[in-house]
Amino acid sequence: MVSFREYESAKLLLKLSETPVDLSKEGVLTPKRIKEFSAKSGNLSLFFAAERVDQTVIDALFSLAEEAKVIDKMQSMQNGEVINQIEGFESEKRSVLHTSMRDFFDTQNPSEKARLATKLAYQELEKLKKFLENVEKEGFTDMIQVGIGGSDLGPRAMYLALKAYQKKGRNVHFISNVDPDDAADVLSKVNLSKTLVIVVSKSGTTLETLTNEQLIRNKLQELGLSPQNHLVAVTGKGSPMDDPSKYKASFYIWDYIGGRYSVTSMVGAVVLAFALGMDKHLEFLKGAHAMDQIALNPNPKENLPLLSALLGLWNRNFLKHQTSAIIPYSQAMLRFPAHLQQCDMESNGKRIDKQAITVDFETGPVIWGEPGTNGQHSFYQLIHQGTNPVPVEFIGFKEAQMQEDIEYLGTTSQEKLLSNLFAQSIGLATGKTNDNPNKVFPGNRPNRLLLAKKCDPYTMGMILSYYENKIAFQGFLWNINSFDQEGVQLGKILANKIIDLFRKQRKDEPIDQKDFPLGRAYLEQLEDL
Amino acid sequence: MVSFREYESAKLLLKLSETPVDLSKEGVLTPKRIKEFSAKSGNLSLFFAAERVDQTVIDALFSLAEEAKVIDKMQSMQNGEVINQIEGFESEKRSVLHTSMRDFFDTQNPSEKARLATKLAYQELEKLKKFLENVEKEGFTDMIQVGIGGSDLGPRAMYLALKAYQKKGRNVHFISNVDPDDAADVLSKVNLSKTLVIVVSKSGTTLETLTNEQLIRNKLQELGLSPQNHLVAVTGKGSPMDDPSKYKASFYIWDYIGGRYSVTSMVGAVVLAFALGMDKHLEFLKGAHAMDQIALNPNPKENLPLLSALLGLWNRNFLKHQTSAIIPYSQAMLRFPAHLQQCDMESNGKRIDKQAITVDFETGPVIWGEPGTNGQHSFYQLIHQGTNPVPVEFIGFKEAQMQEDIEYLGTTSQEKLLSNLFAQSIGLATGKTNDNPNKVFPGNRPNRLLLAKKCDPYTMGMILSYYENKIAFQGFLWNINSFDQEGVQLGKILANKIIDLFRKQRKDEPIDQKDFPLGRAYLEQLEDL
Repeated sequence: MVSFREYESAKLLLKLSETPVDLSKEGVLTPKRIKEFSAKSGNLSLFFAAERVDQTVIDALFSLAEEAKVIDKMQSMQNGEVINQIEGFESEKRSVLHTSMRDFFDTQNPSEKARLATKLAYQELEKLKKFLENVEKEGFTDMIQVGIGGSDLGPRAMYLALKAYQKKGRNVHFISNVDPDDAADVLSKVNLSKTLVIVVSKSGTTLETLTNEQLIRNKLQELGLSPQNHLVAVTGKGSPMDDPSKYKASFYIWDYIGGRYSVTSMVGAVVLAFALGMDKHLEFLKGAHAMDQIALNPNPKENLPLLSALLGLWNRNFLKHQTSAIIPYSQAMLRFPAHLQQCDMESNGKRIDKQAITVDFETGPVIWGEPGTNGQHSFYQLIHQGTNPVPVEFIGFKEAQMQEDIEYLGTTSQEKLLSNLFAQSIGLATGKTNDNPNKVFPGNRPNRLLLAKKCDPYTMGMILSYYENKIAFQGFLWNINSFDQEGVQLGKILANKIIDLFRKQRKDEPIDQKDFPLGRAYLEQLEDL
Repeated sequence: MVSFREYESAKLLLKLSETPVDLSKEGVLTPKRIKEFSAKSGNLSLFFAAERVDQTVIDALFSLAEEAKVIDKMQSMQNGEVINQIEGFESEKRSVLHTSMRDFFDTQNPSEKARLATKLAYQELEKLKKFLENVEKEGFTDMIQVGIGGSDLGPRAMYLALKAYQKKGRNVHFISNVDPDDAADVLSKVNLSKTLVIVVSKSGTTLETLTNEQLIRNKLQELGLSPQNHLVAVTGKGSPMDDPSKYKASFYIWDYIGGRYSVTSMVGAVVLAFALGMDKHLEFLKGAHAMDQIALNPNPKENLPLLSALLGLWNRNFLKHQTSAIIPYSQAMLRFPAHLQQCDMESNGKRIDKQAITVDFETGPVIWGEPGTNGQHSFYQLIHQGTNPVPVEFIGFKEAQMQEDIEYLGTTSQEKLLSNLFAQSIGLATGKTNDNPNKVFPGNRPNRLLLAKKCDPYTMGMILSYYENKIAFQGFLWNINSFDQEGVQLGKILANKIIDLFRKQRKDEPIDQKDFPLGRAYLEQLEDL
């Protein structure tokens, strides 16, 4: 296996990165460039005139994609080959088949394994459809999703993004944190007798989730309600939570669905189909599937996730930017950056490659962001005039979701929103000179725009899949395993040691001098607070 | 004026940064170090054993604070001297007196200017007290705060952090984005006849806020309600919004209160005092004031904001880290990182010093974060095993706010939360070796812990002021102006040009070929979406 830095095109890119295009120079960013440096896939258009690339760089990036055989790797992933592994060492050794969760529209995957995964996924969807028909009759109005990480961020981000399409009279809530104040706040707002509680944990052992489940079971019993009539499990087949006697219903996921890629599995389906109705949930899946198909196109100009992955690599490995901001100009997408923060950073925040060799280049950047225009009144000072440029990916829509817009001073709010979006992209690139040094904008700060007509379920499915596949492509380019998360284990082990100290303290059991002295040192400090 | 890099202690620190302490080495992080590398101010304790410092570095950092005369500068700020300026060029030329908004408890500021600011602030508080007594009688149950940037982030973060203390039967909502879907979502949830709407804009010209105000005025009129009976203004005296005939009440702020430092002014007071009651709001102010006093203590070990500022500088300028994560292990503080993102990045994301000279060192880092334990199931993979370390400031509390905790498997949720917090701090520092390269944690990743007993109003006031003063100290150390925001102007100018294009398009007015061609290029692309 050739290391990323050894590819011929990577060597060329390194050379090209010594003299990248300067967007702040007169005549570089032009209307012609805006038109030409754009690409469209499905409902999504990507404008990258404000990236620091020229045609030579783009060609070299396209060659890099070929050298790294990323389309073959994407096909392998979608076919269910065992790609979640590290050669020669103990690792998860799993397929990665979130794309199969939505592959029942117009195509037939060539691999039997992938087709089986789709078949199982579809069975769960049909089970869910019947379940929701009953729920409708039983008069449930509210749903609480209890889960953390991938069982929370993705479903929550999608729910908020599509809440404008919610069925009347339905409400959805989320409890994620082990912080008891999180659950207390949600439980104070709902009528539990009309509420379904979806407990989501693939392993069936997530401490935060089980703790919150127990808290809700207690609460239901206090109110004289039977937990079995309100609790629903979403878990891996055979997990400790796979016990239908304890739940009103159980829905399954599989070991080939990573938490951060699980929105289109039952992890997201129960809550989204309850909130939006099954039809709209299917539209969402259809959009995601359509983008999965696009991700197999070998021409990066027709494969938006790949194009975006390559531009990101240019910023990260060649222009050496350590962070990347995602800024949707859409309030409904307010939690989408948090979802991508997990999806991207947990996938690509890695330091060894698939052959277990410590990499000698940078992998995933820090991903962060808030919706625009809000961010303009917050951190844009730094992205315009700070000492480290921050590459930005903007997301925008031509139309608002709800039809409550007003014309004020001659334009609608949506037009004002778009005006700000375009203005920021242009301003970051061109900058501005001034005799007053405090009013100088250095410009030359790279950014790109992902645009669509409207944030509807189909388009949101496309956007989700666009990012999932972008992240996978970057992992393929770097030859890292984007699908495990060994980096979260140490914290769990140490936390359990400290939990044990608390337990012993509570039970007045003797604490040995050898029991995790560093943990004890902090426990002692609690006395003085 | 000596540049930051010319200080003798900065030169020493540069030398020391060649061989910083390696926290992953056996025997470096010890219980003794945890106890000794800690400091306490008021209700807050700071543990910095997991920072890459030793006593020599700490001594040099303390000398740096002396050389930069930061305590004198803090005193000047609190005295109301004109510190918001750039020498020799047009600039805001203002005092910075957010500390005066809460200086009426136990001390008397030596400066007449500051005392006058306090007197005016107290008058507004008394007006507010009477106003809220009437509101109580009139039966208003809900309040919507309409504002963006500092008029939104700080008040929202504080409201959520203290929601557990909210008066029964009161609800608070926020509308910030110009995105029409933001307002539509909030307005669909409230009974406007029992709702007060607080419109907050210091300049009285904030486009997003005025647009949303107009939208709500229309809505009230549609419902046969009089806007004058529902709308309240918080604005600068003499601004276009300072027109009592249009509002039920008007409260004032002044040019010496920056948006991002305005939570303790009327910008936050109306909504916080409505939600929590005036007594609890005064406790919040009292906590903030107590920390302002602490910020005047010349001994950094007794001045937590200064100590934190110095540790941050070590990470930023000497260990060269570009980002800094703020992770509260408290769900109530979920929006506090977003507030700090503004407060810090808008203050210190600067590239010239106070003499208008382009700096030759790094200023403010990218600030980001989400609550723990949620982050553990998201981006912690990267902070443990990614290729760029991310310094973390953790925030934790001994006790939960609400009393709804349960014991599960022998410990409470709050104990589990704390166990995770301590475990992460230790694990990031020590790392862990393993024969499997994928299970190796390099460690040596700097972090610190800010701990308190409980997130109550007084303590939250202290925490807010701790960060406000920390940010100010970093600006003093770098000799930059932390109180202006010229970097947001270019976007506004360009956005207005594009808004004008939309307006012309809408009115079928001719668009000239010279009218902002880059903006027109994007408008044309909208057709194809």
